[in-house]
Amino acid sequence: MLKRASKKRLTRPDYNALALALHKKLGGKLEVISKRRLKTKTDWSTMYTPGVGAVSSYVAKHPKSAREYTMKKNSVAVVSDGSAVLGLGNIGPLAALPVMEGKCAIFKEMAGIDGVPIVLATQDPDEIVETVRRIAPTFGAINLEDIKAPYCFEVEERLKKELDIPVMHDDQHGTAIVVLAGLINAAKVVEKNIKKMKVAIIGAGAAGRAIALLLVSYGVKDVVVVDSQGIISTKRKGLVSYKKELATLTNPQNVVGDATTAIAGRDVVVGVSGPGTLTQAHVASMAEKPIVFALANPVPEILPDEARRAGAYVVATGRSDFPNQVNNALVYPGIFRGALDRNVPAITEPMKRAAAEAVAALVMHPTRTEIIPKVTTRGLVAAVAKVIR
Amino acid sequence: MLKRASKKRLTRPDYNALALALHKKLGGKLEVISKRRLKTKTDWSTMYTPGVGAVSSYVAKHPKSAREYTMKKNSVAVVSDGSAVLGLGNIGPLAALPVMEGKCAIFKEMAGIDGVPIVLATQDPDEIVETVRRIAPTFGAINLEDIKAPYCFEVEERLKKELDIPVMHDDQHGTAIVVLAGLINAAKVVEKNIKKMKVAIIGAGAAGRAIALLLVSYGVKDVVVVDSQGIISTKRKGLVSYKKELATLTNPQNVVGDATTAIAGRDVVVGVSGPGTLTQAHVASMAEKPIVFALANPVPEILPDEARRAGAYVVATGRSDFPNQVNNALVYPGIFRGALDRNVPAITEPMKRAAAEAVAALVMHPTRTEIIPKVTTRGLVAAVAKVIR
Repeated sequence: MLKRASKKRLTRPDYNALALALHKKLGGKLEVISKRRLKTKTDWSTMYTPGVGAVSSYVAKHPKSAREYTMKKNSVAVVSDGSAVLGLGNIGPLAALPVMEGKCAIFKEMAGIDGVPIVLATQDPDEIVETVRRIAPTFGAINLEDIKAPYCFEVEERLKKELDIPVMHDDQHGTAIVVLAGLINAAKVVEKNIKKMKVAIIGAGAAGRAIALLLVSYGVKDVVVVDSQGIISTKRKGLVSYKKELATLTNPQNVVGDATTAIAGRDVVVGVSGPGTLTQAHVASMAEKPIVFALANPVPEILPDEARRAGAYVVATGRSDFPNQVNNALVYPGIFRGALDRNVPAITEPMKRAAAEAVAALVMHPTRTEIIPKVTTRGLVAAVAKVIR
Repeated sequence: MLKRASKKRLTRPDYNALALALHKKLGGKLEVISKRRLKTKTDWSTMYTPGVGAVSSYVAKHPKSAREYTMKKNSVAVVSDGSAVLGLGNIGPLAALPVMEGKCAIFKEMAGIDGVPIVLATQDPDEIVETVRRIAPTFGAINLEDIKAPYCFEVEERLKKELDIPVMHDDQHGTAIVVLAGLINAAKVVEKNIKKMKVAIIGAGAAGRAIALLLVSYGVKDVVVVDSQGIISTKRKGLVSYKKELATLTNPQNVVGDATTAIAGRDVVVGVSGPGTLTQAHVASMAEKPIVFALANPVPEILPDEARRAGAYVVATGRSDFPNQVNNALVYPGIFRGALDRNVPAITEPMKRAAAEAVAALVMHPTRTEIIPKVTTRGLVAAVAKVIR
């Protein structure tokens, strides 16, 4: 087995080297183009002065018409402070830019959305909120990306209150929606009622908190969240405020203990922590037909092969080279497409639940190796966009 | 004459109506596209994860490489607070957006630059400076547009100090460069030495101040600036600080008086004020072969016909339907093209003077009706870009 794995690794394309070469060749991935070339005098006089003055005057009188006459109609700012980029951590705004450009490329490819990367030279929550609020007039929506917990929660909540356009932190809700979609189908595969499944979430960061809250809001009764200090419960002292809130919203039995205690007897474990935090013993201790989502990227909490050998029945990861990839790109393009098209003021809990159901429904016959659709699934964006209303 | 003029007006296309219809049809003028489509697995794995992680790690280690691997290489933020938009005044950020999108369309068309409109929900100078500083990592340069005097001066100066990328307020320096270019050629047409020409500038706003300072820096000895209270001189009480500075840098004879006094006997008058502030009597009072730049837009300080009938020898306006259009689009694309290509940290006075000379040189044989090249002149952007070094 080991031999085969290492051989596979050797023959796999070196995406790192290919990506470096491609990025250098392209000199950045995005381009801002005009929908109409400036060739004739009429082009110049209508796209720019004097005609554009009439458009500005009209928008000044009718501010809502900016959604018809300007790029606000179809643009999303993809905002990051570079504090929690992929699995790379706090690498700062410049280093976050290639990832944000990639997100925008996906926006265009999948949903026809004009994404604008905005990487910020600040990691102060007040300053992030202020800055995003001030640049908001250009955009139809704000997609927060790769901002660190816990301040990402405050940043998102304040911006949702202060702006009249939708704001969504993808690392929280994009991930949570795909996880819920995957669990809806995994429940069918193991023939259990999702609302009665007992779930342990390992990791209480941006994704961990959002997954827990969405599962609870979906009706999953017994969810426990585990951080590096153990199970989050109201009995624990010294919890920061968002974990206090999690303690009241999850863990109905108010159990205490470590990850091993949390996982034993559970139907589902969702890892959103780091490599190696799940063991074969953990999986072996779970209820019948264990569902294991090991989402740390690129190295998951436990490798699928290992998990399966320990008895896991359905396994998902964050990686594209294993079955059942939990990939935010499955949902954020459709969510923002729907939000822009219907001019919704916010992405609500019912929309997130409906989006998860829409994604799940794209897999007609869920199996152990197919609980989550691929990003290339026909109709994916439209199916998600449709429920954002 | 009146009959002909009004007939001409009737048959002229209604650019306002055309522009409104076009903007609504397009739904905003700009589009953000990916330089490479996401089709194959290799596209996804190099444009985005996992390969993009290697690019981010590389940029984190080598911050300067952001200029090679990201959109920072070729992008300019076009920033406005909507406080002084075209001739429309303080119409706010949303209403400014169509103009900023137009600027970006021109950036792409003329110079291949990726312009990103950022309209700000603040008109506080401190907040503008803070906001632009915080969003700067995404961009290779900052183009300030349509920000009101006097705080536009402070905003630009502070940003120039605080950022390591070029910052230029186009309404100041773009205009000043084109005016200088026009005067270089007008001086040839009237066979005078530009440095010895006496110049009156009517209007002491963003453009007026910048034109005065650039002419002085070019070696024009006798420049006076007139605001609504009269000639700016060190003898005037209660001047705001930038006008105090202007009083010391211009007006070498320290003359006092109103616009009529200022203009009498001058070789050049440059109007950057409003409709009707120049009269035929003003023009008639000037030195031999008067040069009249009446730049208020769309209605100039004096109409070209009137000015010529009063004796003006060379007339320029801001309008595209008269000869000699002073148009910022002649210079800002080339300036930013050069600045990005050579990674210059700032647009300096010598660069502005060289840019004016480069623009002037594109008119091989200046005449009364051709002192300024057209935006469609072949090689314009390259000629300007070349001197930004």
